[in-house]
Amino acid sequence: MKLGYIGIGIMGKSMAGNLLKAGHDLFIFNRTASKCDSLAAQGAVVCNNSAEVAGRVEVVFINVTDTPDVEEVIFGAAGIIESARSGLIVIDNSTISPRATVDFAQKLKEKKVAYLDAPVSGGDVGAQQGTLAIMVGGDKEVFNKCLPLLEVLGSNIVHVGDVGMGQTCKACNQLFCALHMLACCEGIALAKTAGLDPGIMVKVVSSGAGGSWALANLGPKIIKGDFPPGFMIDLLSKDLNFTMELAQKGRLPLLGTALARELLHGAQAADQGRQGTQALYHVIEKLAGGK
Amino acid sequence: MKLGYIGIGIMGKSMAGNLLKAGHDLFIFNRTASKCDSLAAQGAVVCNNSAEVAGRVEVVFINVTDTPDVEEVIFGAAGIIESARSGLIVIDNSTISPRATVDFAQKLKEKKVAYLDAPVSGGDVGAQQGTLAIMVGGDKEVFNKCLPLLEVLGSNIVHVGDVGMGQTCKACNQLFCALHMLACCEGIALAKTAGLDPGIMVKVVSSGAGGSWALANLGPKIIKGDFPPGFMIDLLSKDLNFTMELAQKGRLPLLGTALARELLHGAQAADQGRQGTQALYHVIEKLAGGK
Repeated sequence: MKLGYIGIGIMGKSMAGNLLKAGHDLFIFNRTASKCDSLAAQGAVVCNNSAEVAGRVEVVFINVTDTPDVEEVIFGAAGIIESARSGLIVIDNSTISPRATVDFAQKLKEKKVAYLDAPVSGGDVGAQQGTLAIMVGGDKEVFNKCLPLLEVLGSNIVHVGDVGMGQTCKACNQLFCALHMLACCEGIALAKTAGLDPGIMVKVVSSGAGGSWALANLGPKIIKGDFPPGFMIDLLSKDLNFTMELAQKGRLPLLGTALARELLHGAQAADQGRQGTQALYHVIEKLAGGK
Repeated sequence: MKLGYIGIGIMGKSMAGNLLKAGHDLFIFNRTASKCDSLAAQGAVVCNNSAEVAGRVEVVFINVTDTPDVEEVIFGAAGIIESARSGLIVIDNSTISPRATVDFAQKLKEKKVAYLDAPVSGGDVGAQQGTLAIMVGGDKEVFNKCLPLLEVLGSNIVHVGDVGMGQTCKACNQLFCALHMLACCEGIALAKTAGLDPGIMVKVVSSGAGGSWALANLGPKIIKGDFPPGFMIDLLSKDLNFTMELAQKGRLPLLGTALARELLHGAQAADQGRQGTQALYHVIEKLAGGK
């Protein structure tokens, strides 16, 4: 099948690579062209812009940073919309605003272009191994048609509802990631303060009713002082904008999530934004008088 | 072996029952005597007070609600101390103050009585099935001697450090339980508010980097409106006293845990204290204008 992939970052590169390995003809575009080199060497065709990609394929994936980036790729100069034909399917793997997603899909529908919002969870490792969780919103028939492609990218593909609901589910997912990380930081800081070996604490608590993915996977990194990402604080902070956008729209006070978000802002202010989310630990340490 | 068990509540009854089934001679006491009936029918000897239990056994377990209750059992009228002989081992399965635990152990040491703090995690089901996590503080030699007994009660027995460190580890565990429950309530409320099927959200998020034991096990209960305990809000609220006691002693601000605790107080104020911790959901709903 002729497929497009726009946005060859850490995630996009691995995901596009898996589509290529699965035998599809792949057409790619990235703003920083050099990031396309290794996929080009594996046989991907590098295009000059998003419009060129969309003009040559049946399904085009997008994986860029934020809502304005997706808007630019679709509706900007030399965007997908310029060459989009009836029947084209756009699958957005980015994490962006659920509200904007509904708008984008509506505008594309007028051109008879179908749209699935399909944000992912599982990090760089999941992208490499094709074991991502993918939360998909959009028309069920379009979803079914695209399922074999999504199964190349992930191992847990769920149709969660209408268009926008994929992003809504991701916004919920990020709420959990933020609050669980706050729990990790406070719990490890408490163990250290109280003279309990934090490694033993993480091991015991992880195995029981206090366990979380974050504690089991990122807790040991905090203890080792291993802060590179993984998943960056800047991105989690951005993603929580969508969580709070949904909450505000529904007039739902999210006290815990709001607190976690403010502390992530503190981590960004302390130049930890490009570190992994576990670097939130520095903020908790600072509150306790650390440097 | 001749064993004592003082405190035949939901947890104690199952745990003492497992010791009995393992072939030990069991001597029990409970303030409300009728709670001993079913264990007596299985062969346990019901005693008149804690002193009588301690006088007849080699190892005596305690499983009562709070710090003053443990103090009463050991040092009160007809308490363990009255009949305690050199070499007796006291194992406290209650969740109480780490600081008080160190005091109790010190006083017992003067009478040549050994003390292990051994709070558990895993709930009523874990107690019944003998699959509890048990976090043990105290002398390593005493721990090794008691390990075969603890292995009757749990499947994940860890010596976490000196006396008091079992309770310290439990205090950390409860921090995670509280913050994870807050995440569950906010995440499910957000999904509902945003029109996303909360059951699908829980399933997807549980399987990935946003997953926790609480979400997988208690999330579905929130969605079903199933609020009976499991583990009661009153008890989690009490346990967080010990978490905050440690934090205060170490001058560690725990903003997230403090927030979760205040909201649990809100649940208690709304007469949800004897419901399961998942009933915290009512507080989040109320904040959003629900009844």
